[in-house]
Amino acid sequence: MENFVFQNTTKIIFGKGTEKSAGAEIKKYSNKALLHYGGQSIKKYGLYERVIKSLADTGIEFIELSGVAPNPVLSMVEEGIELCRKNNIGFILAVGGGSVIDSAKAIAIGVPYEKGDVWDFFMGKAKAEAAVSIGVILTITAAGSESSVVSVILNEKTQMKKGYHSSLMLPKFAILNPELTYTLPAFQTACGSADIMSHIFERYFTQSKNTDLTDRLCEGALKTVVENTPIVLANPENYDARAELMWASTLAHNGLLGTGRIEDWGSHKIAHELGAVYGITHGAAISVTFPAWMKYVYKQNIGRFKQFAFRVWGVDPCFGDDESIALEGIKKLGDFFKEIGLPTSLKELKIGDDKFEEMALKELQWGPIGNFMKLQKEDIVNILKLAM
Amino acid sequence: MENFVFQNTTKIIFGKGTEKSAGAEIKKYSNKALLHYGGQSIKKYGLYERVIKSLADTGIEFIELSGVAPNPVLSMVEEGIELCRKNNIGFILAVGGGSVIDSAKAIAIGVPYEKGDVWDFFMGKAKAEAAVSIGVILTITAAGSESSVVSVILNEKTQMKKGYHSSLMLPKFAILNPELTYTLPAFQTACGSADIMSHIFERYFTQSKNTDLTDRLCEGALKTVVENTPIVLANPENYDARAELMWASTLAHNGLLGTGRIEDWGSHKIAHELGAVYGITHGAAISVTFPAWMKYVYKQNIGRFKQFAFRVWGVDPCFGDDESIALEGIKKLGDFFKEIGLPTSLKELKIGDDKFEEMALKELQWGPIGNFMKLQKEDIVNILKLAM
Repeated sequence: MENFVFQNTTKIIFGKGTEKSAGAEIKKYSNKALLHYGGQSIKKYGLYERVIKSLADTGIEFIELSGVAPNPVLSMVEEGIELCRKNNIGFILAVGGGSVIDSAKAIAIGVPYEKGDVWDFFMGKAKAEAAVSIGVILTITAAGSESSVVSVILNEKTQMKKGYHSSLMLPKFAILNPELTYTLPAFQTACGSADIMSHIFERYFTQSKNTDLTDRLCEGALKTVVENTPIVLANPENYDARAELMWASTLAHNGLLGTGRIEDWGSHKIAHELGAVYGITHGAAISVTFPAWMKYVYKQNIGRFKQFAFRVWGVDPCFGDDESIALEGIKKLGDFFKEIGLPTSLKELKIGDDKFEEMALKELQWGPIGNFMKLQKEDIVNILKLAM
Repeated sequence: MENFVFQNTTKIIFGKGTEKSAGAEIKKYSNKALLHYGGQSIKKYGLYERVIKSLADTGIEFIELSGVAPNPVLSMVEEGIELCRKNNIGFILAVGGGSVIDSAKAIAIGVPYEKGDVWDFFMGKAKAEAAVSIGVILTITAAGSESSVVSVILNEKTQMKKGYHSSLMLPKFAILNPELTYTLPAFQTACGSADIMSHIFERYFTQSKNTDLTDRLCEGALKTVVENTPIVLANPENYDARAELMWASTLAHNGLLGTGRIEDWGSHKIAHELGAVYGITHGAAISVTFPAWMKYVYKQNIGRFKQFAFRVWGVDPCFGDDESIALEGIKKLGDFFKEIGLPTSLKELKIGDDKFEEMALKELQWGPIGNFMKLQKEDIVNILKLAM
């Protein structure tokens, strides 16, 4: 087990009707908030009214910035920073999924950074030293951004999608009401599950030795997602299955499952490239990229992939030799993605091989990616070919 | 799944050599600390010198209060409160296991409570409203007190052992270096494992429905303890196995595994009575009490005990009918306790049945105990009889 420091201070407020507590939670930090959200869906089902009422009941003034789209963009972050500065905003409430939360996080660190552009942080040119406090009402079970220290933003001008890490961006609270995810379309629900699983994979597939406890926690979370996703797809208003996915999505990315382990994050970077260049939904990029990455790297540690096959997918230990068992586990993951309606090849997304080298080079600006296996240009191109 | 609020802000600093960071962590809160510990063992192996050096290097003054014994007592808590008040102490550093930490927590809430005695909190007569900040260097893997909101103290005058819950007592940091547990005697190591398991049992054995994720997290943590305890007993200086137990002990009791579930805590109260009346080590009281409690209550939810047998102990699903499988799981727990050298009957502890009623009545002052099954006097006596 590796040495580590773990601290996650986000207050999780979980369950039915919990969005009512938003105003009281914000009040601890400020009387003036930016209400940040995506499209009209939060208005369609009454959530918007409930949030507004909670703010009004606690005397919190607010202004709005809506229109965040998947793969949240720098231009809207910059707009949010200006709005917050002009209106003396002391709190940002993100109502939505990972894109809205990531956008809110970037705004939060951008507001007090007057000597440069917020993109500096994402390009490694500056380090955030202060942030506006943020809180979350989660409506999409996927990104885990509600209690993570990461924000991923797309710079539309350069077509670069980059992440930045800072504990300053950790939300003060995250309101998780599974009912708010009832209206998510099936495809988006499935993409969310792929995203949750990918956050666990990035921690699970490690070369760190002696990681018994976190292995088992990862496996338990994966099995929970595998068992509950089909239930939710068959019955979108199954509260308990929605609740399992929601809590799993948060725990998958709050740092706990990576304690004592060197994490990977190679596949995520490749998936982010697919998002940046082709605008495909992150979860779909994940379902295409991960099985390909696994097929490419499993020989680096067959024992780990055997364990994955056995403990997560229930592959019979007598199925064959270690390599066959490992490959069967990877196959089962691909089968699962297909079963829940996700693409598992670039062809299905109508993406050809013409930009593979370009994408690889863009990801390699800061050196090889990934830790389970360090990926160079040739490796990334090969993985993308396996994903065809 | 039940609605819940979860927040645990303790900073975990885990791994080899991490005790060196104590001074720098304390410095964030105060320049004057109370160094609180048990006996001479921290001096014997050099830990004391390293801690003193870390405090000196960061310019932190300190006074000492040592001599905390298992089942920490109210009189020492009161002594600590006086010491802190007289010396204007701004931080309490607990170096030890659960007893030292619980004692430090009680001192922490007692210092600012000038209008009464600290025991008021434990008797439900007052609510803590402020506390001195505390930090921990853990030397015993067991209690999970290093990131829990609970303190359990024994009032020697009344022979009452009571717990108090308050987030004010949550340590600011917990330094977890598995090497510091190398010198723990085998019996104490085994008692620690029983204690860890019991904290998980109190959450796992619930009547709450639809708790997939936390079930699996509990099962994963239990399997980790079951697998690593014999390794540590055979080789006390196995860093990785010590590390697994240490991290499991913290996660078992930081609140995460109970999220969305109604917890039980009946057996713990019975075990606390055995500690209070007979002074036996908590882990040994646990290894006697839990199998008896299980045999008494399993019919309240055979499915849960079947799952326990199958997922934690690997009992073959074709072993027999549900009841046989459930009972086999309970038997395997008892066998495990025996295997690691713990008592599983009161007879082994030379405890007779003469105080059963008295102990039961003491625990029932605030009504029936436990939630998996509400225990009345007759139930507690019956459980103790099963533990003979």
